[in-house]
This record gives sequence, structure tokens and C-alpha cells, in this order.
Amino acid sequence: MDQDHKMDIDSNNGSSNVPKKRTLDELQNPVDPIIKTEQQNTTSADRKLLYNQPQQNKDFSDESDVIVPLTKPDLHYVPLKTGLCYDVRMRYHAKIFTSYFEYIDPHPEDPRRIYRIYKILAEHGLINDKTLSGRDDIGELMLKIPVREASREEILLVHTEEHLKFIESTQAMSKEELLKETEKGDSVYFNNDSLLSAKLSCGGAIEACKAVVEGRVKNSLAVVRPPGHHAEPDAPGGFCLFSNVAVAAKSILTNYPESVRRIIILDWDVHHGNGTQKAFINDPRVLYISLHRYEQGKYYPGTQAGGADQVGEGKGVGFNVNIPWPVGGVGDADYIYAFRKVIMPICYEFNSDLVIISSGFDAADGDVIGGCHVSPAGYGHMTHYLKSLNKGNLCVVLEGGYNLDSIAKSALRVAKVLLGEPPEELKDMTPKSETIEVIDDVIKIQSRYWKSLKPGYYGRDFNLTSIMGEPESLAKAATGPTFEEMALAHERVNDSVRTHQKTTLFDNNNFVALPIVSEKRGEASLQNEILCTKGIYDADKIIIIIHDPSRIWSRRDPVTGDLDTSQSVVVDQSQRFIDWAQKEHFGIIDVNIPLTITGENELNYNNITSSQDALLYLWDNYIQYFKVSKIAFVGVGDAYNGVVHLCGHRDVRTLVKASINFLDKPTALRAVVSTIDESVTDWFYRNSLVFTSHKHPCWGDIEKNGSNQKRPRKKYGRVIRADVENLDSVIDERFEEACDFILDSVEDYETESESE
Amino acid sequence: MDQDHKMDIDSNNGSSNVPKKRTLDELQNPVDPIIKTEQQNTTSADRKLLYNQPQQNKDFSDESDVIVPLTKPDLHYVPLKTGLCYDVRMRYHAKIFTSYFEYIDPHPEDPRRIYRIYKILAEHGLINDKTLSGRDDIGELMLKIPVREASREEILLVHTEEHLKFIESTQAMSKEELLKETEKGDSVYFNNDSLLSAKLSCGGAIEACKAVVEGRVKNSLAVVRPPGHHAEPDAPGGFCLFSNVAVAAKSILTNYPESVRRIIILDWDVHHGNGTQKAFINDPRVLYISLHRYEQGKYYPGTQAGGADQVGEGKGVGFNVNIPWPVGGVGDADYIYAFRKVIMPICYEFNSDLVIISSGFDAADGDVIGGCHVSPAGYGHMTHYLKSLNKGNLCVVLEGGYNLDSIAKSALRVAKVLLGEPPEELKDMTPKSETIEVIDDVIKIQSRYWKSLKPGYYGRDFNLTSIMGEPESLAKAATGPTFEEMALAHERVNDSVRTHQKTTLFDNNNFVALPIVSEKRGEASLQNEILCTKGIYDADKIIIIIHDPSRIWSRRDPVTGDLDTSQSVVVDQSQRFIDWAQKEHFGIIDVNIPLTITGENELNYNNITSSQDALLYLWDNYIQYFKVSKIAFVGVGDAYNGVVHLCGHRDVRTLVKASINFLDKPTALRAVVSTIDESVTDWFYRNSLVFTSHKHPCWGDIEKNGSNQKRPRKKYGRVIRADVENLDSVIDERFEEACDFILDSVEDYETESESE
Repeated sequence: MDQDHKMDIDSNNGSSNVPKKRTLDELQNPVDPIIKTEQQNTTSADRKLLYNQPQQNKDFSDESDVIVPLTKPDLHYVPLKTGLCYDVRMRYHAKIFTSYFEYIDPHPEDPRRIYRIYKILAEHGLINDKTLSGRDDIGELMLKIPVREASREEILLVHTEEHLKFIESTQAMSKEELLKETEKGDSVYFNNDSLLSAKLSCGGAIEACKAVVEGRVKNSLAVVRPPGHHAEPDAPGGFCLFSNVAVAAKSILTNYPESVRRIIILDWDVHHGNGTQKAFINDPRVLYISLHRYEQGKYYPGTQAGGADQVGEGKGVGFNVNIPWPVGGVGDADYIYAFRKVIMPICYEFNSDLVIISSGFDAADGDVIGGCHVSPAGYGHMTHYLKSLNKGNLCVVLEGGYNLDSIAKSALRVAKVLLGEPPEELKDMTPKSETIEVIDDVIKIQSRYWKSLKPGYYGRDFNLTSIMGEPESLAKAATGPTFEEMALAHERVNDSVRTHQKTTLFDNNNFVALPIVSEKRGEASLQNEILCTKGIYDADKIIIIIHDPSRIWSRRDPVTGDLDTSQSVVVDQSQRFIDWAQKEHFGIIDVNIPLTITGENELNYNNITSSQDALLYLWDNYIQYFKVSKIAFVGVGDAYNGVVHLCGHRDVRTLVKASINFLDKPTALRAVVSTIDESVTDWFYRNSLVFTSHKHPCWGDIEKNGSNQKRPRKKYGRVIRADVENLDSVIDERFEEACDFILDSVEDYETESESE
Repeated sequence: MDQDHKMDIDSNNGSSNVPKKRTLDELQNPVDPIIKTEQQNTTSADRKLLYNQPQQNKDFSDESDVIVPLTKPDLHYVPLKTGLCYDVRMRYHAKIFTSYFEYIDPHPEDPRRIYRIYKILAEHGLINDKTLSGRDDIGELMLKIPVREASREEILLVHTEEHLKFIESTQAMSKEELLKETEKGDSVYFNNDSLLSAKLSCGGAIEACKAVVEGRVKNSLAVVRPPGHHAEPDAPGGFCLFSNVAVAAKSILTNYPESVRRIIILDWDVHHGNGTQKAFINDPRVLYISLHRYEQGKYYPGTQAGGADQVGEGKGVGFNVNIPWPVGGVGDADYIYAFRKVIMPICYEFNSDLVIISSGFDAADGDVIGGCHVSPAGYGHMTHYLKSLNKGNLCVVLEGGYNLDSIAKSALRVAKVLLGEPPEELKDMTPKSETIEVIDDVIKIQSRYWKSLKPGYYGRDFNLTSIMGEPESLAKAATGPTFEEMALAHERVNDSVRTHQKTTLFDNNNFVALPIVSEKRGEASLQNEILCTKGIYDADKIIIIIHDPSRIWSRRDPVTGDLDTSQSVVVDQSQRFIDWAQKEHFGIIDVNIPLTITGENELNYNNITSSQDALLYLWDNYIQYFKVSKIAFVGVGDAYNGVVHLCGHRDVRTLVKASINFLDKPTALRAVVSTIDESVTDWFYRNSLVFTSHKHPCWGDIEKNGSNQKRPRKKYGRVIRADVENLDSVIDERFEEACDFILDSVEDYETESESE
């Protein structure tokens, strides 16, 4: 036993760092001074406990002497207010009417926009301002941040002298000059107050950020107009005159270099913030992230600047993230998906000191210009996520948003979350397929620069080396070939797979390649793709299987991103039909239709037309000359289009007895459209089975309609819905039924007639 | 022009819903009553703007009459306090000392745990309680929720009568009986106050949840002991007597069926909550999610119940999510990664009404029992995320956590976030490789039940059909074969790839298969794997390429999860060496070493020993009989082990002139260990090049050490670090150097000696 402790038990040197001496009995049955005062309704007589065990903690003080002095709560965020910038003078900038029509349908960048937001905050008690005049003391929750005009120096941090001079000149222009400049400009308008409003808008953004950085408020909301993110350094545009957020960010970086070294600008306005992007394209201190409707550059601003491939330039490479929606109609689910998969990981990795949200509300549900469906709850959630960064230093600056009701409701919810409310619940969280594809593209591109995006942090299919430089030079570099470059130099997997299948069929099933004499484009590529049993010319009954390429089921190593080829299987359903058909003494033709090809015809290739061409070619050049009397088709996947097309363009009814088709969810149903006569439709219906995935869209929106299955029309054939979702499972489920149908269809009726 | 409007312009019917009549001049130059009162320092004389455009909004009231009455702020969360449960009587439950040793090293489930948490809240001003006595009025921020004993009925919601009776009996047991039960139990101890403390702990959890559900507090923190989540319905365990959180959840579901229909229990205690899991294993109303150290079931509680495959039973299938860490030492990055990839998507999809956090702080940095490194900021972030669910209805209940300082700091940060502080910033966000693998496994398993986890919402490699039943019966079903089942029925991709390579080599490079006479296990599988040029017996100089299987670079369709085989390439580096070697008139042997195999030897197969066996076999049975005089080895990936092994086990020095090796990041360096003599090491160093990925671990922890590269020792050969990361890029970068080295090494010196 420790000698020191033994000694301590018997003596008391009075130091408070030494445990009080106790006998063993006392150790087992101590008196707790605190508990003695609190005893109530206890059940045990002997309620003494051991407390002070010095070895486990350093606090040797006798607990009965404990006094914890009352102290101010150690909270830095909660006690502060949320800042608010609003100034009625920003309403002065307005479009000069030139026709009565504008009375009915005014310009969307309407002076009432900021008024309506201010009003809804008052209506919901977040600010006190009965007359909505913009008073200074607005209550306990929000703190009015005085709006001032941005100075020339501040504006020149981003803009050119020429641009500033031009905007300054609008102040004194005549009405005719103002109208002329409005006409000339790229979606801008001017009146004599535009300069003032623009300088206030810019100054408001600066002051809103300053207040957060200086710790006067916990976060802030700048309800400003005109907006800023389309204004490029040398030109106004898209309703914007000065690039408010860009000027604010540059101003903060200039004036608070110690406390703010990196800024994230998150632009959720439905348009791409080309102005902001341009201002920081070379700047690694500012991470610009924008989600916007893009449509391959057709949506305003209508340039390629908003494309996902714009990642920054020079030192700023890797610090620009564009998430371009290919269509409108995106909603909460899509935005949250982007946050979850791309934005939050990148933001954590960037380690900012301030987040500025370029907050247009034109992606809000109800905005006709934006055409999207983000709900107030969606904006609330995004705000809540961004609050978790850099200790909640967050500044929200208004950009666009043109439905007065929508922007009011959205801004209200953002303000509530800034004040500390949790976000409202979200409804449907299923993103669109287009969204998933776009996010995947963005991840591919950005994972060159952000290691938190790499598949498994070591993605082979991007072959990245991401080198983070010294903190002073946050430059990044990426080396190594891209997937596309590798693809030029190496074999396609489908060639390997097809070759192997060919070998198997040649060796085991007595197949040969059908010689293709190529005359039309695309036919040469069929060389490897049409195989048949020997003696096909003489076969009495033939099965023609036309199918998409075999699928590979595999597991990607989550850490390395590798596909272990010995852990991947080729799921080939033809083989099953082939083995069965040979047992039944059918001749067999197997046609493989690749989804894409490589080589000269790559861009022109379309697998649907290829399947059509293949079967027409087969029909015209071979089947006409065969001795066959009965044909059954088996179509799998997109390739089945060839079957339907053939049935519509050639009179196949004498030879073709049955057509079995298996459709995956993405393969659209195709109607037989006969160029011969209408009764083909009926014939097709009676002689075909089209098995679809359970989730095939032809059955309607299952989740909305419940069990209300609309039946596809007869022109699609007899369409049957499998119970399972996956194509290969559908084939498993219906294989026997299909085979029976074929056998019945080709059954020889001569025996019947003989018996008559 | 609209007739109605034309009329309205000239008359005034006095209705407030009709726009005031205006002349066209007035339209262009309106007077804004509000602005008139606010005008200051304006630059334009003519500051009239148009405001009321009725078509755009329904608000026709004249703004000068606007009065927005002062109203209570429309905030439901911010004005409420955070609830706190604490009662000093929960300190009574303590272990009876049986030896002096326990004085030095007391039982970790120590009465001071709750005291220390309460104390730090007071020290930081979150509560006012100078003497830490547990007073009722604790200030403005937190609301004391009175702790009461749980009733028999409540406890019996989860536990059996026998169990409850047993715990009740401890109240009157003698000291000897108490000690005996302590000894017998599974990591539990008892004294005469255990029943009281346990009932208070349970009742405290119930009351904390009730207060949130009833809206008396915005969220709550129950600082209770003894903990609960290991107590199973019929037995105590792991320091737990009653399953506090389970009883609370069941009580809430029973008593508030209208407002709380679904509950999420998120258990971040470092141990698996076997008790909670068991209580709700069949219950679809409670989603139990646990992150815990597991180590294949070896870590406490030491059963398989915490495995990722435990997904619930019966109606509860799909509502149990285990995230089992295979090792200790996990930290913030791993927990946040789990939240991001699995937990938050599932929670959103589940759509709960209440979240209860089983909050053990034993994964905290400093806890010796847990051995992990979650920082207070990490707990803060997890709390912030969970706050975004179901309107912030959140109740945090203490479970384990045994380092008094760590639990205090962690609980303090959680309390601050509950109060509205943003979380602190996180440091390193790179999860461990083991974490990424585990999360991938969990996603595989859980994506059968949660569509937000499916790869692209339509994952082929899981072949799922997830059918959500009616709200009343939240049962889920999954159908279709698993990957493993498909793998039994179909070809492995590596077979396809190797067959294709074989065919190419046979056709183009004059290769044949080396006949293997199989005597030892594993050799039969080499049949397809060793190919060589014709006439290999007579070749004077031979290159032997031994390599891992070719890699597949492919893109997985993010929506369907499919691999498009025509968009996937086989990256085969052998071909490059083969073509070069043939140009240089080498004989060539190409040995492919699969990473795994299928068939009878599957479980015994190890690719490293296989590469060793292959080369020994080749050496002993073939090379001995060849006419070769100069051999060069090219080793790629793990397969290079065969080369090193051979050099250590056979005297290769006369024949082998060079050994070139390319190592990927996961391939460990291997030292040549000679059974022959020590000078082999030196020989190997002089005659080999080992090119490694830039990120190979043999170069040390790059991020920590910066440019401090420790050089691998000579016994590994001459190890050279490439500038690129990816294996195939390494080969690209160093191909010429390798070839030159080989040529130099096999150069015939006879010409030199002739010239002497």
C-alpha cells in the first residue's frame, strides 16, 4: 500500500490539497453534509456515501464549503440580437413607367419587395415598428443596423472607376437619358435615385457584415435593394447596380484581416451570381458556392459562367462551386440533397470565419420567374445548417425574389431561424433524378480540390492528387489523367464482357458470329454483336433475343473507390434463354445492342435506333432467306424497341408468333405503329407480353395514386406489372411464364388438324 | 386595354378594394405619403414613386394608414427555457466498498458524475445555484423539472414484474446480500438506496420528455444516474438498473398518442444500448439508432446484438440502426460522417415527433473506458443537427461517461447548444478508413428499408423493393436476391476480363497458356492465370510480370446505380510492358493473381500467399528447366510480394538481373528476408526499384510531418516515391525509367570484355 496514503490517514497537515483523513469505517459510511440538509422521504436509515476520491479528480475541497458564485451566463451568441438593415430610401430606385401596361404588370424588381419583408417581420412581432417607418429602436429581438451609403473606396474594391462614374452620372440624367440607359442595359433600369439606393444597398450589406464580425449582433439580415450578385466589376446587369455582397466581403477581408481570413458566400438565388463569381474568381480567400437554374446556360444570365466546370482561376482554382440545375421545378429535397452531399462537406473543409448568404428568394414556391418550389421550411433548414459553421457568424443579404408573398414568408422563416427557432419540418425529401446526376457531376469536378468529396477519399476513377499548399498560398493542384483520357487508351469493359460471352457461346452452345456485310452507318459495329447457332438457315423455329448489354453488379470499395473485379458479377440473362431454347431445339440469334459505342460514330450513336436498324437489317437480309416458319422475339431493356419497330414496319405476322419483352424502369413503353395496317395493333396485343418493373412509370405515380393503377393501352402490347423492381428480378419472376407463352405460341397446329 | 381599368381610372366607387384612380401623369410620378415623411438628403427633386400596383398583390390599403399593432413575437422556441432534471438523491446509489483499493480506484459509475455536470452548468452561469443544492429556481435560462420516482406502472411498460420486484428487494437487503448480488450481477452494484435512485433516474427521464412534449420547455437535459440503456426488460446490467429512456419513450407514446406518434432514440454512448434495442425491437414507432464501439462483439456488452445486421424484428424490421465501430479511437470526424451519410437522411425520412438522445459521454476524449476522441464541439454539432428535426423537440438523457472532466465539458457544450449557441468549430474532418467501410456496410444493410440511402434511389446491387405500408402498419418488406445470391449464379467480371485479355494475347502477341500440373492447393486456380509467349523454354532473356487483376475504371449512374459497361474501361498495365518486351525480344510470362477467388477454396484463399506460391512454383518447375540466362521481374500491386518472397527463398542472383515494382497505397512494403545469406539484402537493394504511390504510408504521415520524408530502409529495395497518387499514374510516370533499368540490367557485358 502506498506509504503516503497510509500516513495521510493519521495526520492532518491542514493543506486543502490533501484528502481529509478517514478511518476505513468512515470511508465506507461517510456523512454527506449536503445530503443531510436535503433528506426527504428516504427509505434507508443509513444514507451515508463516500464522496471524495482524490485520485479521480483534482477537486479536494470539502463539498460543504462549495459556493459557486453567480456569474453571467457563458453564452456568446444567445444574448445577442439579430441585426437588421432596412432603409426606406432604398425604395426610391424604381423603373420609370413608359406605358400603361407597366401599371398592370410592373417590373418585378419592385420597391415594395423590401417593404413587404420589413412588414411581415413587424406583423409577426419580431420587430416593433407600428408605422413601418424604419425607426431605430425595433425591440428586444432585432437590432437595427444603421444603413449608410457605401463610399467610393469601398465600391472601388470591386468595381472599375468607369462603372462607378457611370452609376454616379445617372443621378443627374434627364428622363430621356435615363430611359435610354434603361433600354441599353442588360436588364437594368435607372431613375435619379438609383445611385442613392444602390449605395445604401451596398453600404447596408457592408454594415450588416461588420456588425456580425465585430460581435455586436449574433447574425444579421440585410433587407436591401437593388440586388447585387449580377453586377460585374465593369457593368451592371440583371437588376443589379453594385455587387453588394462582393463589396462587403472584400471590405471585411481588408479591414479585419486578423479575425476574418476566409469567407464563404453561399448564393441560393435562383440565378447564377456571375458578378460575385467574377469578383473572386482568382481569390482563394473567398469560397463562392452557387445553386442556380442553368439549363445549359440558357437561363439568365445566359452565359456558361454558371457551369459546374467553372472552378476558379489561378490561385482561386478550387474555390468556386457551381451547382447548376438543368431544369426548373426543383424544390426543398434537391437543395437539401446538395447541402448534404456537396455544400456542407466543402464548407467544413474550408474552415471559414464568416458566411454571407446571397439570399435571393426567387427559387421560392410561387415565384413565376424562378419556377421552383423551395418552401420557407427549406430556407429555414439551409440557414440552420449554415449556422453550424464558424461559430454561427452569418449574414443574410437579400438578392432577388419577385413574388411579394413568397419572399415575405421565406424571409420571415429565415429571420426566425437566425433568432434561434428550429426549422420547420420538410415534406417530401426525394430529389429529382436530374438533381442526383448534377450533384454527381459536381462531385466529380470538385473532388479534384476537396478531399471530403472523394469517393472513399481515394477515388480511382478520378485519379486525383490534391495538394494543399501552405496556409499563405491556398493554391491547389490536381494531376493525373481524367477518366476520359484513360478511356481513350484502354479497353471498354463491355468489349471484355462480350468477348467472354462470345467465347462461352462458341464453346458451349455451338454459336457462330453472323457475318454482317456493312453498308449503312453503324452496321460495322454490329460485327461482334450478332451471334447465332450453327445451321440457323435451316432452323424451323427461331428465337431472336435482342438485349441491352449485360449488367455488372459490383461493390465499390468505399475507401479506395476500386471495383474488385473478382467481387463483381456479370448478370447475363440471355444465357438463360439460350440454354432453354436449345433444349427446345430452337435456332437462336442473340443480338447485343450497346448503350453507347466508342470510335468515330460515337456522337451519332443512339441505341434505340441501333436496335431498330439491327432488326430491320436482320429481317431484310437474313430472315427472308431462312427456312424458318416460326419466330419468337425476346426483347430485354431499351433494345426491345427494335422488336416493336419491326412489327410496325414489316409484315411479320406470318412468321412471328410471340414477342416477350422485359422492361426496366427507365425504358419507355413503345407503341406499335403500323405502316401496314391497323390490325397490327390488335395482333401485337394478342401475341406479345411486356413485363415491366414494378416501379415502371407507365403505372402512374404510385405514391400519389396508391393502388390506382392506370392500365397502359393496347397499342403497347399486353403490359404486365411484375411484383419486383429490378430488371433481372423481373426476368427471374416471369421466366417460366415467358417460356410457356413462347411454347404455346409456336405449337404446331398440324396435329390438331390431322386429328379433325 | 381592359375596359374595367379604363373605367376605374375616372371614377371612384369608394371601395377599398379598388385602386385609387390616377391620371397617367400621376402613374408616372406618384406621391408616396410614407416617403414624404422620411425624406432626408435626397439628391433628386422629383422623388415620387409608384407604389400600389394591385395586380401584383392583394393589398390595396393606402400605406399611409398602415399601423402594424405591436404583437407578441411569433416565436415558439426561443422564448422557452431549456429544462433540467437533477436531484441529489440520485447520488445515493453507490458501490459498497469492500477493499481499500476501491478508495484509490473507485467504481467508474460514480455518484459525482451528475454532481460535476450540475456544477459546471452553474460555474458557467447557465444555472443559478450557489450551493449546488438542487434548488427550484435556477434562473432565466434553464427550468428545473422536478424529479419524481417512476411508478410501478411506468416501469412495467418495459420491465418484467420479476425484475422490478428484484430491484425493489434491494432496498431492504443486508450488506452481505447486497455484496452478493453485486458480485453475481453483470457489471452492476447495489446498495439500499439503489431503488430510490433508479426510480428517480427513470422518473427524471420521463419528466424531461414530458416537459418537452407539453411545450413547457423547448428542449431538456436530464442529468440522471444510474444510467439505463443496458438494462434489459428482465435484467439489470452494465451499471443500469431500469431502462430510463425506454420507459420514457413508452410512457410518452402511451400518454400522448395524438401529438407523439414516432420517436427517434439516438444513442451516442460508446456502448451499444442493448436494453433499449430490445425494448423496441418489434416496435415500428420507435427508431433506435446507436453508434458504438463493437469490435465484432468483443466490446461490452459483448454480444452480437450490436451488429449492423440487427435491423429489428417483426413489425419493427427496418427501425433499428446499429453503427458499430470496429476499433476504438474514433473521433468527431467519424461521428459527423455517420450523421451526414446515414443518420440524418434516415431521420428526415422517418419524420418523428420527438428525439431522445441517450447521451453517454464515454466516447469523449479522455474517457479511458471508451478510448475514443469525441470533442465537446463534436457533441455540440450532433446536437445542432438533431435540433433541426421535428421542430426542435429534443430531450437529452445522461447514460454513461466516466471521466468527470470530460463529461462535464461535453455536457456543458450540449447544454449551450440546447440553449441556442451554435456549435464550436471542428478540427480534422477526415474519417478513418474503417469508418468509411463500416458506414458503407450500414448503408448496404439499411438501404433495404430506407430509400434515402439507396445509391441513386434505385440501387441495382441491392435489388431492393421497399414497400412502405399504411401509416397504421409501418411494416416494410424487401424482396429480390442479394448481391451474394446473384454472385452464385453468374460469372465473375474478372473471368470475363481475363478471358478477353487471354484472347487478345493469344491473337496479337503470340501467347499460350502455361500448363499447370496442379499438386498443391490453389494451383489449379492458376490455370487461366499464367500465360507466356511461345517458345518460352528457349528464350535467352525473360520478363516475368506478376500483377494484381486489372482495374476497372467506371462511372456508376448516380440515379440507377448501374455500371454502364460501355462507359467502363479495363485498365491493364501488363499490355504495355508486354508490347515493349516483345519489341525488345524478351520472352514473357504474365502471371495474374486474383484478389479473391470463388469456389471451394474461397475462404482459404489469400492473394499474398498465392503470389508467393505462384512464383515458387514457376521457379522450381519451369525456370529451372528453361534455357534462360537473364530474368527481369515486374511486380504490380500486392502481387509483388511473390517477387520479394522468391528472392528471399531461392538463390536467384545469377539469373535475376532486375526487379521493378509498382506499389499502390494499400500495398504494404515487404522486406526481403533471406534464408540463404545476408548479402541478398544488399543485392536486392542494388537490383530493384520499388515505385510507390505518392501517398504510400511508408513515407510517414505527410500532413503531420510536412516535407519530412523518412526513407524506407534498404531491406525494402530501392524505394522511390512517385509524384502521383494512383497506381496506374505511377506506372505512367515511371514506365520509361523502369524499362531503361531493365535494359541496362540485362545488357550483355560480353561486348565489353571482348573489347578489353
